Amino acid sequence: MTGDNPARQHGRSAGRNEGESIVTIEPDVSITEEAVRRWGTAQSPRTAALMTALVRHLHAFARETGLTPDEWMAGVQWLTRTGRLSDDKRQEFILASDVLGLSSLVVQLNHRFDERATPATVLGPFHIDGSPPAGFGADMSEGLPGVPLFLVGRVTGLDGKAVPDAVLDVWQADVDGVYEAQLPEVDEARLRAKYRVRPDGSYCVRTIVPLGYTIPMDGPVGDLIGRTAISAYRPAHIHFLLDEPGYEKLITHLFPAGTEYLDSDVVFGVKDALITPFVEHQPGPSPDGGTMDRPFLVAHYDFVLQPAQS
Amino acid sequence: MTGDNPARQHGRSAGRNEGESIVTIEPDVSITEEAVRRWGTAQSPRTAALMTALVRHLHAFARETGLTPDEWMAGVQWLTRTGRLSDDKRQEFILASDVLGLSSLVVQLNHRFDERATPATVLGPFHIDGSPPAGFGADMSEGLPGVPLFLVGRVTGLDGKAVPDAVLDVWQADVDGVYEAQLPEVDEARLRAKYRVRPDGSYCVRTIVPLGYTIPMDGPVGDLIGRTAISAYRPAHIHFLLDEPGYEKLITHLFPAGTEYLDSDVVFGVKDALITPFVEHQPGPSPDGGTMDRPFLVAHYDFVLQPAQS
Repeated sequence: MTGDNPARQHGRSAGRNEGESIVTIEPDVSITEEAVRRWGTAQSPRTAALMTALVRHLHAFARETGLTPDEWMAGVQWLTRTGRLSDDKRQEFILASDVLGLSSLVVQLNHRFDERATPATVLGPFHIDGSPPAGFGADMSEGLPGVPLFLVGRVTGLDGKAVPDAVLDVWQADVDGVYEAQLPEVDEARLRAKYRVRPDGSYCVRTIVPLGYTIPMDGPVGDLIGRTAISAYRPAHIHFLLDEPGYEKLITHLFPAGTEYLDSDVVFGVKDALITPFVEHQPGPSPDGGTMDRPFLVAHYDFVLQPAQS
Repeated sequence: MTGDNPARQHGRSAGRNEGESIVTIEPDVSITEEAVRRWGTAQSPRTAALMTALVRHLHAFARETGLTPDEWMAGVQWLTRTGRLSDDKRQEFILASDVLGLSSLVVQLNHRFDERATPATVLGPFHIDGSPPAGFGADMSEGLPGVPLFLVGRVTGLDGKAVPDAVLDVWQADVDGVYEAQLPEVDEARLRAKYRVRPDGSYCVRTIVPLGYTIPMDGPVGDLIGRTAISAYRPAHIHFLLDEPGYEKLITHLFPAGTEYLDSDVVFGVKDALITPFVEHQPGPSPDGGTMDRPFLVAHYDFVLQPAQS
């Protein structure tokens, strides 16, 4: 024997005794038990808890459905396509989580706010970090078609007092239901901006009226939706993110009262307290202190932040 | 109002009546119930069964662990990295399924073979389709370092009769534990070949002795394993795939008796009936009908195929 001595790797080459104690995996239950035991060795107790729960639920899914090798491989390929389609801008895994109701569930499990506070809803796959600052009444829809809309109100705590220097990070889709994140060629902010409130907590966002739209149907998530009777529409909405010191981070939407699809939102994002009237106005004075020469809409909404639950 | 009439989208702009019947999602249970209802509308009953079970188990995992938004986002990012690393050659999702015990479980759920038949085990992430044909005794390790090994035996049905024209698709790692699938620059078959049996069902594979190795630790799966006390090793083994008309497809391994890591295989692939002696021989006559001028090993193994369970 030379070099890499195989005796080290397969010492008892003269034959295997039938009675020797080779530990192997018995049918069914013991694979799960052994996998739970192994992943339970994670150094972090939280990682151990998450991984062992993942193993148990994943195995229970396979056992309950009698998952076949072909279905398993279809799942592997679906996950691979979903991952390869995802990057800094498009996030198909978030979309998948959204349409399965998981995103909305995670929000509900983690944001048990006071009933006076503005409720949270899903982030969605289209938020972009680092939107530019915008002044009171600035138009974040500059140059894009659509019906003018003013969003006005205050950002306060539960006591109604202003949250000084609060910043409203706002983003929405255009009249075709398309977000900047879906337009790789766009390299400046489009329908997104950060509005700092005035000392009394008041804000004024100028934008365009949002419309309902379908989620992207050209990827693996759309393929799955297309095999069901699920409506692929989201009701019209505008996204907001507020992350202020001393308060719970708030990721939410506003929906126009009476808009379509409120009862069938494909991402499970609608909550009653996030539905607000979008009121039509004729040409004339507008909430930014100026004057409009064409009809516009105004929505009043006060964002009420939940104090941090440390 | 002009063009795209917002009245259609948000008709009751004069305000929302508190009592109107907007269906929204109540805390906790109803998101799951609604998601199960929606995915249950899949046209294919099997798709409906799989998707509703997926929703239930995914939601149960989130509820049980109290999954936080940060953990949810870490999961999204882990899945994205795993997908972006996967392609025709490297399959990190299969590796993930392997180390979670899911792959082995799916094999066990679907291959309840007669006890006389060769058991199946995991495919692993490294199989490449379309390996070249090789004759009786041909050396699939041509030019690579390692201790010579001959694998000999027959391919039969449960009755011991030869399976005519059966083809053994064989693949393995080199002495460094590396598969061709992990070497993007390699463009001809390396340690893989398809051996057709002779009329009496006999085969002879010449290759090199396999060694134990760690799974790839440079990706998201390795990152997870590294947070635990799990051994990242697989015991030495050689892969086989037999897909013959009239028989159940057989994906399996052979392990050398006495090799390390048989009791801790990171992918849960070991079964007693797949462990076989690798016997040392001194220079002299070899099973391919030739003569060896240096020591070599021989493993005898008869592959017994399970008749198709249609």
